[in-house]
Amino acid sequence: MDNGPPRGTRDLLPDSVARREAVMAELAGSYARFGFRRIETPCIEDLSRLSWGEGGDNEKLIYKILRRGLDPVVAAGIALGDLVDLGLRYDLTVPLTRFYANNAGKLPLPFRAMQIGPVWRAERPQRGRFRQFTQCDIDTVGEPSVLAEAELLEATLTALGAIGIEGVTVRVNDRRLLAALAAEVGVSESALRAFYVILDKLDKIGWNGVRDELVEQGHSGAVGGRCEQIVSLISGAGSPDGAIARAADLLPGMAESVLTELRETFDALSRVGAAAPPGALTACLDTTVVRGMGYYTGQIFELAHPDAPSAIAGGGRYDDLVGRSLGKKVPACGISIGFDRVVEMARFAPPDLGVALLHSAEVPRWEVLEMARRVRLEGDSATLVSRRGQLKVQLATLQSAGYSSFVVVEPGGVSERRPLRG
Amino acid sequence: MDNGPPRGTRDLLPDSVARREAVMAELAGSYARFGFRRIETPCIEDLSRLSWGEGGDNEKLIYKILRRGLDPVVAAGIALGDLVDLGLRYDLTVPLTRFYANNAGKLPLPFRAMQIGPVWRAERPQRGRFRQFTQCDIDTVGEPSVLAEAELLEATLTALGAIGIEGVTVRVNDRRLLAALAAEVGVSESALRAFYVILDKLDKIGWNGVRDELVEQGHSGAVGGRCEQIVSLISGAGSPDGAIARAADLLPGMAESVLTELRETFDALSRVGAAAPPGALTACLDTTVVRGMGYYTGQIFELAHPDAPSAIAGGGRYDDLVGRSLGKKVPACGISIGFDRVVEMARFAPPDLGVALLHSAEVPRWEVLEMARRVRLEGDSATLVSRRGQLKVQLATLQSAGYSSFVVVEPGGVSERRPLRG
Repeated sequence: MDNGPPRGTRDLLPDSVARREAVMAELAGSYARFGFRRIETPCIEDLSRLSWGEGGDNEKLIYKILRRGLDPVVAAGIALGDLVDLGLRYDLTVPLTRFYANNAGKLPLPFRAMQIGPVWRAERPQRGRFRQFTQCDIDTVGEPSVLAEAELLEATLTALGAIGIEGVTVRVNDRRLLAALAAEVGVSESALRAFYVILDKLDKIGWNGVRDELVEQGHSGAVGGRCEQIVSLISGAGSPDGAIARAADLLPGMAESVLTELRETFDALSRVGAAAPPGALTACLDTTVVRGMGYYTGQIFELAHPDAPSAIAGGGRYDDLVGRSLGKKVPACGISIGFDRVVEMARFAPPDLGVALLHSAEVPRWEVLEMARRVRLEGDSATLVSRRGQLKVQLATLQSAGYSSFVVVEPGGVSERRPLRG
Repeated sequence: MDNGPPRGTRDLLPDSVARREAVMAELAGSYARFGFRRIETPCIEDLSRLSWGEGGDNEKLIYKILRRGLDPVVAAGIALGDLVDLGLRYDLTVPLTRFYANNAGKLPLPFRAMQIGPVWRAERPQRGRFRQFTQCDIDTVGEPSVLAEAELLEATLTALGAIGIEGVTVRVNDRRLLAALAAEVGVSESALRAFYVILDKLDKIGWNGVRDELVEQGHSGAVGGRCEQIVSLISGAGSPDGAIARAADLLPGMAESVLTELRETFDALSRVGAAAPPGALTACLDTTVVRGMGYYTGQIFELAHPDAPSAIAGGGRYDDLVGRSLGKKVPACGISIGFDRVVEMARFAPPDLGVALLHSAEVPRWEVLEMARRVRLEGDSATLVSRRGQLKVQLATLQSAGYSSFVVVEPGGVSERRPLRG
């Protein structure tokens, strides 16, 4: 009998959960010091909302839930879509915007939200990627200025630092810069989404692949080449300020405010970098950062680390998404940590499991329980363990499991507490 | 536009989540001192496992998930069941037994598991009951003796005490006693499950209802009356020991070991009660406790509290369930706290949100961020708040939100930190 969890999901054993809980507590504590407060939404949302067309490819990966109370046999010609009404959330941003619209009257402005929870995507299973995984998001709703971006980035870098992750590179871009790039190379507004999807694949398919796909989409052969040229010139500038200046020259269609805001974000990042240990932080303007979701409207960012094959965090500004629910435009910006990825990279001290209380079968149960109660009253953890086999072997097992001391309860009485370490 | 969460579910605002997190931390910390270690399983399980026939009525309430990759139009005559392969878990016990079977080689024996997580039941929505709710379970796998029951009950009473919930009544029963009762009144083994379902409704439909339903099921009119008579005689005994003695007389078909084990559990509970504040704990043998699930095999228990309309926790022994997955019988016993219910009853001190950093729009952003950074370096939380309206009104709002002090950042400089309380 197969006792594995469903395909693409996993069981988490005690040592894994201990690590995850400790890392989660550090991240949450760190974010709380910036004023982000935890909220929770249900794991299920109406399918109509999840299928809004804002989720990019993720909308193809939704786990859909059958309506309740249907007839056991499906009538002929019924569309599959008529049988489902709910779906498992694929991110925490779409639920957040619904939450905000639902509760705006009870929330401060700006509202700083923190969410830690599972999301689901029915992706092709692959090494290190799971169909249920955890995201750790912070979002600021109601702050129109890049104060939001600056604070979100500083909070996330601080939180990552708190779990020992340093040497992060922040790759910053702006959807408005990408739109100006598209216009400059001759991509029309109606082809913009498809252009983003192709550019987003750059790190997988390279510029040759991007050029081929652009031609396949009906663009002239020059579009891809011109695109590569502009991107290379900007990234070749060396410093964020230089890159912004080049972008201004090469993309004259871009509004001045985009440049000012990029400068402000890099300025904030350099101040954070100056306060951090040397080398803890690098920042660059990377015009190939796209982010999959449809809903971004302004700055977008990805956090990269040499030990991680892909981004450990990402996010950006989505000024129109809350308005779709609330019927009133409210600016918003957020960043999401790929929790399952950073948890493996985090600094972590395994917990002390306390006292192992070894008892033989001959000791009356109430006596063993009483002994354990006394240990716990002193503030320690006490775990009852049946005395089995060679004492030396059993003690070694207990030590490697994480217990720091032991007592032996025998019919004659109780041994002194002895350390298992050192 | 309706921005509410799906029917029967809810959004949790920051103050609610803060309370839940604090209560969760207390419960988890308390359970950890008994050696219970957290595990996690996915929220989705194979439908075939969730529909094993062990989940009682909950199997009718499963949220079922559509298979991926189906044709958009359903062919005629297809059974609804062929379109689904996964379901949202309705409890944490079925997943735990799969987890144990999947990972037994890596786990200690006995294995003490703690789980805190959401479960889903598509129940008719009603006040105070939600379709997504949180359970907090501990289970001991691999301990055949009532040491497991005694420890689970002590740990749960201690955990509830840690969040300020005292005055709990532990109602203990045993499925083997229920089976002996059924045999005594003439209910055949094949009718046992249906008999349990009817008896389980006693607190809703009373003895008249129970008698009527038993007759409807084809039992003679005497069955219900005899049943009521035995139950009343046992519960009228006054003390657990007296009740056990009467049960022994009235149900001669019951094995001696059932009585011995019940005595041991009550003995353990009286020792816990003696160590606790007066009145913190009452225990009774209640032969009307049934528990809905099909999988219980031995002692079952419910924890009642005068402030709660129904049980705040419940559980029991299920010695056959792990074996169904593992192919080898492993005894197990567990108890589940209805987290959403106890969280409202728990003692809780709202968190201090720290320093509110009031800033006007004229102050450069980097200066505000810098100021906040300095507050956080001193170990405090600092939340940026735009200066708006009358200062007195804004300060009152901040105080009631939970901030303990404030500073005002203005173009001229920064005010001293002043307390918001007292």
